[in-house]
Amino acid sequence: MSDSLRGLFEAVRDGRLDPVEAERRARETLQADPCENLEFARVDHHRAARQGFPEVIYGQGKTPAQVAAIAQAIVNRGHSLLITRTDTAAFESVAKLVPDARFHEQARIIERRTEIPRGRGVVLVAAAGTSDIPTAEEAAISAEVMGNDVDRLYDVGVAGLHRLLAERERIAAARVLIVVAGMEGALPSVIGGLVRSPVIAVPTSVGYGSSFGGMTALLAMLNSCASGVAVVNIDNGFGAAAVASAINHLE
Amino acid sequence: MSDSLRGLFEAVRDGRLDPVEAERRARETLQADPCENLEFARVDHHRAARQGFPEVIYGQGKTPAQVAAIAQAIVNRGHSLLITRTDTAAFESVAKLVPDARFHEQARIIERRTEIPRGRGVVLVAAAGTSDIPTAEEAAISAEVMGNDVDRLYDVGVAGLHRLLAERERIAAARVLIVVAGMEGALPSVIGGLVRSPVIAVPTSVGYGSSFGGMTALLAMLNSCASGVAVVNIDNGFGAAAVASAINHLE
Amino acid sequence: MSDSLRGLFEAVRDGRLDPVEAERRARETLQADPCENLEFARVDHHRAARQGFPEVIYGQGKTPAQVAAIAQAIVNRGHSLLITRTDTAAFESVAKLVPDARFHEQARIIERRTEIPRGRGVVLVAAAGTSDIPTAEEAAISAEVMGNDVDRLYDVGVAGLHRLLAERERIAAARVLIVVAGMEGALPSVIGGLVRSPVIAVPTSVGYGSSFGGMTALLAMLNSCASGVAVVNIDNGFGAAAVASAINHLE
Amino acid sequence: MSDSLRGLFEAVRDGRLDPVEAERRARETLQADPCENLEFARVDHHRAARQGFPEVIYGQGKTPAQVAAIAQAIVNRGHSLLITRTDTAAFESVAKLVPDARFHEQARIIERRTEIPRGRGVVLVAAAGTSDIPTAEEAAISAEVMGNDVDRLYDVGVAGLHRLLAERERIAAARVLIVVAGMEGALPSVIGGLVRSPVIAVPTSVGYGSSFGGMTALLAMLNSCASGVAVVNIDNGFGAAAVASAINHLE
Amino acid sequence: MSDSLRGLFEAVRDGRLDPVEAERRARETLQADPCENLEFARVDHHRAARQGFPEVIYGQGKTPAQVAAIAQAIVNRGHSLLITRTDTAAFESVAKLVPDARFHEQARIIERRTEIPRGRGVVLVAAAGTSDIPTAEEAAISAEVMGNDVDRLYDVGVAGLHRLLAERERIAAARVLIVVAGMEGALPSVIGGLVRSPVIAVPTSVGYGSSFGGMTALLAMLNSCASGVAVVNIDNGFGAAAVASAINHLE
Amino acid sequence: MSDSLRGLFEAVRDGRLDPVEAERRARETLQADPCENLEFARVDHHRAARQGFPEVIYGQGKTPAQVAAIAQAIVNRGHSLLITRTDTAAFESVAKLVPDARFHEQARIIERRTEIPRGRGVVLVAAAGTSDIPTAEEAAISAEVMGNDVDRLYDVGVAGLHRLLAERERIAAARVLIVVAGMEGALPSVIGGLVRSPVIAVPTSVGYGSSFGGMTALLAMLNSCASGVAVVNIDNGFGAAAVASAINHLE
Amino acid sequence: MSDSLRGLFEAVRDGRLDPVEAERRARETLQADPCENLEFARVDHHRAARQGFPEVIYGQGKTPAQVAAIAQAIVNRGHSLLITRTDTAAFESVAKLVPDARFHEQARIIERRTEIPRGRGVVLVAAAGTSDIPTAEEAAISAEVMGNDVDRLYDVGVAGLHRLLAERERIAAARVLIVVAGMEGALPSVIGGLVRSPVIAVPTSVGYGSSFGGMTALLAMLNSCASGVAVVNIDNGFGAAAVASAINHLE
Amino acid sequence: MSDSLRGLFEAVRDGRLDPVEAERRARETLQADPCENLEFARVDHHRAARQGFPEVIYGQGKTPAQVAAIAQAIVNRGHSLLITRTDTAAFESVAKLVPDARFHEQARIIERRTEIPRGRGVVLVAAAGTSDIPTAEEAAISAEVMGNDVDRLYDVGVAGLHRLLAERERIAAARVLIVVAGMEGALPSVIGGLVRSPVIAVPTSVGYGSSFGGMTALLAMLNSCASGVAVVNIDNGFGAAAVASAINHLE
Repeated sequence: MSDSLRGLFEAVRDGRLDPVEAERRARETLQADPCENLEFARVDHHRAARQGFPEVIYGQGKTPAQVAAIAQAIVNRGHSLLITRTDTAAFESVAKLVPDARFHEQARIIERRTEIPRGRGVVLVAAAGTSDIPTAEEAAISAEVMGNDVDRLYDVGVAGLHRLLAERERIAAARVLIVVAGMEGALPSVIGGLVRSPVIAVPTSVGYGSSFGGMTALLAMLNSCASGVAVVNIDNGFGAAAVASAINHLE
Repeated sequence: MSDSLRGLFEAVRDGRLDPVEAERRARETLQADPCENLEFARVDHHRAARQGFPEVIYGQGKTPAQVAAIAQAIVNRGHSLLITRTDTAAFESVAKLVPDARFHEQARIIERRTEIPRGRGVVLVAAAGTSDIPTAEEAAISAEVMGNDVDRLYDVGVAGLHRLLAERERIAAARVLIVVAGMEGALPSVIGGLVRSPVIAVPTSVGYGSSFGGMTALLAMLNSCASGVAVVNIDNGFGAAAVASAINHLE
Repeated sequence: MSDSLRGLFEAVRDGRLDPVEAERRARETLQADPCENLEFARVDHHRAARQGFPEVIYGQGKTPAQVAAIAQAIVNRGHSLLITRTDTAAFESVAKLVPDARFHEQARIIERRTEIPRGRGVVLVAAAGTSDIPTAEEAAISAEVMGNDVDRLYDVGVAGLHRLLAERERIAAARVLIVVAGMEGALPSVIGGLVRSPVIAVPTSVGYGSSFGGMTALLAMLNSCASGVAVVNIDNGFGAAAVASAINHLE
Repeated sequence: MSDSLRGLFEAVRDGRLDPVEAERRARETLQADPCENLEFARVDHHRAARQGFPEVIYGQGKTPAQVAAIAQAIVNRGHSLLITRTDTAAFESVAKLVPDARFHEQARIIERRTEIPRGRGVVLVAAAGTSDIPTAEEAAISAEVMGNDVDRLYDVGVAGLHRLLAERERIAAARVLIVVAGMEGALPSVIGGLVRSPVIAVPTSVGYGSSFGGMTALLAMLNSCASGVAVVNIDNGFGAAAVASAINHLE
Repeated sequence: MSDSLRGLFEAVRDGRLDPVEAERRARETLQADPCENLEFARVDHHRAARQGFPEVIYGQGKTPAQVAAIAQAIVNRGHSLLITRTDTAAFESVAKLVPDARFHEQARIIERRTEIPRGRGVVLVAAAGTSDIPTAEEAAISAEVMGNDVDRLYDVGVAGLHRLLAERERIAAARVLIVVAGMEGALPSVIGGLVRSPVIAVPTSVGYGSSFGGMTALLAMLNSCASGVAVVNIDNGFGAAAVASAINHLE
Repeated sequence: MSDSLRGLFEAVRDGRLDPVEAERRARETLQADPCENLEFARVDHHRAARQGFPEVIYGQGKTPAQVAAIAQAIVNRGHSLLITRTDTAAFESVAKLVPDARFHEQARIIERRTEIPRGRGVVLVAAAGTSDIPTAEEAAISAEVMGNDVDRLYDVGVAGLHRLLAERERIAAARVLIVVAGMEGALPSVIGGLVRSPVIAVPTSVGYGSSFGGMTALLAMLNSCASGVAVVNIDNGFGAAAVASAINHLE
Repeated sequence: MSDSLRGLFEAVRDGRLDPVEAERRARETLQADPCENLEFARVDHHRAARQGFPEVIYGQGKTPAQVAAIAQAIVNRGHSLLITRTDTAAFESVAKLVPDARFHEQARIIERRTEIPRGRGVVLVAAAGTSDIPTAEEAAISAEVMGNDVDRLYDVGVAGLHRLLAERERIAAARVLIVVAGMEGALPSVIGGLVRSPVIAVPTSVGYGSSFGGMTALLAMLNSCASGVAVVNIDNGFGAAAVASAINHLE
Repeated sequence: MSDSLRGLFEAVRDGRLDPVEAERRARETLQADPCENLEFARVDHHRAARQGFPEVIYGQGKTPAQVAAIAQAIVNRGHSLLITRTDTAAFESVAKLVPDARFHEQARIIERRTEIPRGRGVVLVAAAGTSDIPTAEEAAISAEVMGNDVDRLYDVGVAGLHRLLAERERIAAARVLIVVAGMEGALPSVIGGLVRSPVIAVPTSVGYGSSFGGMTALLAMLNSCASGVAVVNIDNGFGAAAVASAINHLE
């Protein structure tokens, strides 16, 4: 942008452009909308440049046709495709326009990978119980699509500490950790006390009664007595992956 | 009661009592109020017989004069005295009527012990952090007054697991465990996974922000993935002691 | 573990083992994972030894295939099988691998019993209303599978006290009591005032409107004015049984 | 009002009044404000006629001067004075203007009684614990000021049922019952199951931790399994008295 | 009961009965369970005598077979039948055993009326909006089955005050008022300010978003600035009818 | 109304009417119910005169037959028809009685427009994300039916500010703004800081986990640090349109 | 800004400026910060131009010295001063720097007025009860400082409808209405049903128990069945005034 | 630890140690408690090695004497001292034992720095408003004590976007960002959309009414539509600093 603004000034200096037209073009440049407007959505094609990964499609609340149209717009620009919280119906629509897209049913993800910069270390995804795996997979696959090596460590809940302690080395080896747990959400506190790497905690809606759809795990994680823990929304595996990937891509 | 009812029937049979008067006395016996009515309080002197420990005075919301009057009524019967959630002002009133009562300021307890049946094993009281000690002490002292041997294990929160694991033997040796924690309330889950004895979890109001005065720790404990854990109200050290003592006094 | 560590030292002393290999084996021993890793689950075969009852399968959020695989791993070790919060679909999968498993539809339990140590007394399961029976049955059957004699006392809610008072003797005879109630959750307070045995209160989601899925009953039980009451999660019949069984198995 | 409207028509018919002026007066009559406007308050002097008891002053959030001015306006009309949620400072201001007003400190009430119609039966006020007495007294004194005979029955909580059952006759004798309880709020359910008279339940803020300032008792009462129970706001002794008095004054 | 107790004493006096047997029979009498035990339910046949109306069946959470069995037990005693929160499936089961039972689909009630004492005045049931009618009908039909004359006044919400004010006379004529409203739940405050009769407010779950399933209306009603208002649970038309009927049957 | 009251007085003066009959008619006039009573609904035909737009039908909780009957009553008076929160079933019933009614499925609106006064400026409807469009369309169509020009600006969420800033001119041109957002609900704060026109914020239930069905967006909007923002209920596009239209119709 | 950008181009065209320097200046212009940076605050002096009223100081959480420094910065520019949620200590600091500032203790406002454009109509501020007056005054004074004529209508709560209906004309005369109420928050619904002007509802924290610090009133207002009502935060009189003033200043 | 274990084996091999003693020492080594037990606290001196920064003292709920004793134990080992949520009283106690400790009143921090490894980039701390500065300073000072360069950017709330956009370069230059905001908590979403570095969001308790002590800001941040945002507890500036420092110290 800097160059073209300077270019305008140079063109004016050289008499190739008059100031009024130059001003009009300067304004146009400065306001240029990098978004492709699909009426119901403005696809933000500058996001990869600005934030390190292209726009991700949040599938919930969008019709299959809307999802597919946005997906196509993204793929057309040669960007990586990542659709979260989606389903079979959306995949059928997407597959017609993006035939090589893949659907991960458990993780509710549709994706199509392109070459992107690799993160520097390993992102470990730990899950407390078997029922937490769908959210853990959302995190793991998202992190992979974003260019990270992922190590999965599942069913290591705190009521059986030896399962966790037996994997201390893998835990210590990670550059970033995503820790997924429902119910009382204690796993991030225990892991947070073992490592010096940052821990991204993901509460899940696994549980019943006073687990309140994951609220209990969320609150527990926010109140962790371990100090290197930050938290994302309930069941938000993707969000954790986005933070972890941002960290893992730091030079 | 059974004897006197039979006694009445025998008196009637023997002509010592007429049926109308006998009925009146039978009703009286059956309705006899074991409570001493102080107007503002009905002191339940049968509770020791019925429940294994005399009535305990909940100090909050009572005037010093009310607390002292109930305390005197209990001591007059020769029962153990235990006043919880109390303060210096109440102690001053109590001390005038019950000179050998003791005040534990941190635990907010006034007590005077008498001989009562001893529990069979040790009640371990574990606390996650230094700030949880007042509630832990409420539990520990209450349990002692109720006739239990108490082992205290403080500042063993889950973010530094080694502190806890180093004490595994004391933990395993307890017949019942009271586990006190604020913030994310994870300690009962970890301890619950290590032992076969019952665990009574006590959430505390230690924390800030989204700890919501102990609600977070309470919810976490209710959703513990360890299966032998039951929970009492926030900061309710006494309640935990009452349950633990009931368990510890089982033959 | 102690013996084999000593054994290693003896082998080294005797020249049968060199120190480097000995160290490797010592580490291996100390880290030995008693868990069978099924990828999506780590079956904890030491739990029976450590906690008095084998690992229990929480059925919710697991696929029928996952439930069946874990069930088979448990049965293969000769352990008792207990699956909670499960359904017909899971039972069909389990039955193929564990033909003599039984399904209790109302209690949502699949189980297969083996010889285990018997509890010393009776676990009484009281339920306030007919609608609370499914949770009460989850508690009762779980307690039975865990080796306890169970006495069931249903539809004895506090709005008709005579129903409860008529059963005072059965109530007094129990070594531990599980008290199940929805709506205002008052039954544990009333029963708690009648007995000296510990009471495990189970709130249920029975009710509507401001019962908030059992939250009201849960809060009421946590605030019980009876002092020997501890509480588990909403509808958590199994959890109550686990605590009650731990108590009932105390020497 | 009917008479004067007809009077206007008759005056017009008789030529004593012209229609335009008659219309003006008719409008005035119909809109006549029975309120005395004190700028910061509009004292509703018709309330006694409309609702059976004069306007009651809610003391909280009003300055002593405001309370006193409204009190004087009410007393000037010869009405009964009832000020709730008030304090010593307000009483000092009121006493200057209404010298024979009385202050009940525990109940936080200032009152001055006048002759008013008597209720037909007895209003029983039951309180679960000693700490509930301030709210119970707010109810009892309010009911007395409103012309009702009141029977007080305090410290009869459900954890000691015999205390309650010993008073069955007084309970059965009441025409309306106000039942006051904090903590788990179970007393209205138990009393509601014993009587056929209507029960007005008053939750109190007595308790701590998960009693949430009376929310738990409130919810419990709303979910009572006894069917003749209605509920008022937390600590709202006055509100309960108002409903009970309305019932007790029914022919 | 008094007579037979006296009868026992007379029999003993007369030598017709020995004291030991007399005591046994006295205990039996005093403990006699007026409940019919159906295993899953204890039908309380004394409730009509004790509380003025027979046991009412809460349909939710019971199987059609359970509902029908309890219904039959009640009808067999000649009592009025009232089943709330029920459905077509239950009605089909009931109809086989109680052929003349009637089903009110909108109100979700099954009922069969018998002669019972009539209330003294009219119970007015007001509903704020058309969507509140199912709950209002639950109240109205319940009140009718309980022996009350009912006046229905629907769609008189506060945003169109003239609709309400036009019916002032019917409102003033009622002995008790049941006021049903969802959303902001303001109707009981407005009606409560117009009458001297007691008002039973019923919040409904009508609304969306921050109406939180009726919580908003419930809270609003509990905080009514009109003083003669008491509240029942969300959508609890039956509960309101029970209170209103108790009031309307007062001499 | 004024005229006819005067007319009555003039008729009395002129001897055409006697005072008793005049009084009766005066009362009738004053109480005249402008509502058409359909039993289950009182259609308020004066609302257009009183509030600037005819009664709007809230479709939820009403049967198709009820919706259609009310719709017909409104159309019969020549009023504009607007039905919100409705569905295909209701539309089928309405279409039989009002053949030229239109159904907007995404916005869940049935409408039929008549000539009504036009608002003075443009109502801008901004939506943060594609998933918020149904609520935004409810607002936009409602505003159009109420006589406003509407400008739609969708998918301009705060995480991609350039999308919003690129449309600054359209934002500045609006006389009133309706800003629709789910999740963290930040858009109204950002837009509110850019304009001097009033902003009506509409939280939506778009989100998951701790979005709590729109509660988070609602709370965020209520706590906006931008000062010209007012808020309506979650998903209440119609309500926002009603406020915006009232503002836009101000002279 | 447009002119100077063009000016730069013209200077380049005329050879008075070289392109590199021109670009630097263009960037500087485009990024020019209209804020005065006080380290702890950036005073936004463009706000009057952008939003129609200068920056308002939110006093809570700021030290008296901070408040005074910001106040001085605003007054130095000749802008109107408005400080909300402030106190005597802050006023003492402000008065030293801005001697003619005025303090309204009840409303917790410090202000100093300058000439600003007048709103077109009257802003009516209605308050339900005497205790709501502080918030109402915050609204009224804020609206006055912002250039509006204000009509105050206090103590017109819905439990005494005649007080409100007697003032119908003043209500109908307002261009915008601010309606302030605590407890059940019903007043905006009733007023909203009477007028066609927009209604800004302000819930207050007046109440106790389940009023939850104003949450009940807030929720009630958000769920108003009257359609022209929008809501601001609890006790946010200033916010209501800002919205009302924005509306009242619309041409 | 590895070396000494091998050392033991070598000593056994060499006959310098017998196996029984060797086993005892091996166990001792493996269980060695790196904690210094102060009775009320176990100071974890290994934390610096394990987690990259020594144990931090959470001041709230500890007595000044406890704080000072723990502080001395930490300083005695030569570790950096960081005490959060502390006050003047604690500082006075600490200063006697650690004379060169510094107290930051606004941030409520006591600290004494030692040489520790420096983070690689800049940690930017942004605060939305002046009232958020205490929490922002807790974060900033904590981060500095942990060895990070900190850039402070205060009073850049979203209602005045230009203040934020003017600082885009500083924002883009940070390696990690801590974003502090109360009220609607929107700032992390806006900043999160501008950068590729990870954002740690800190909600504050700044606000009133429905800000619910920071709950609203917390929920908003958890539901951020910007994808690289993770959240810590309300007012937890230290926690954010700990996560940010862990990230900033990654190679």
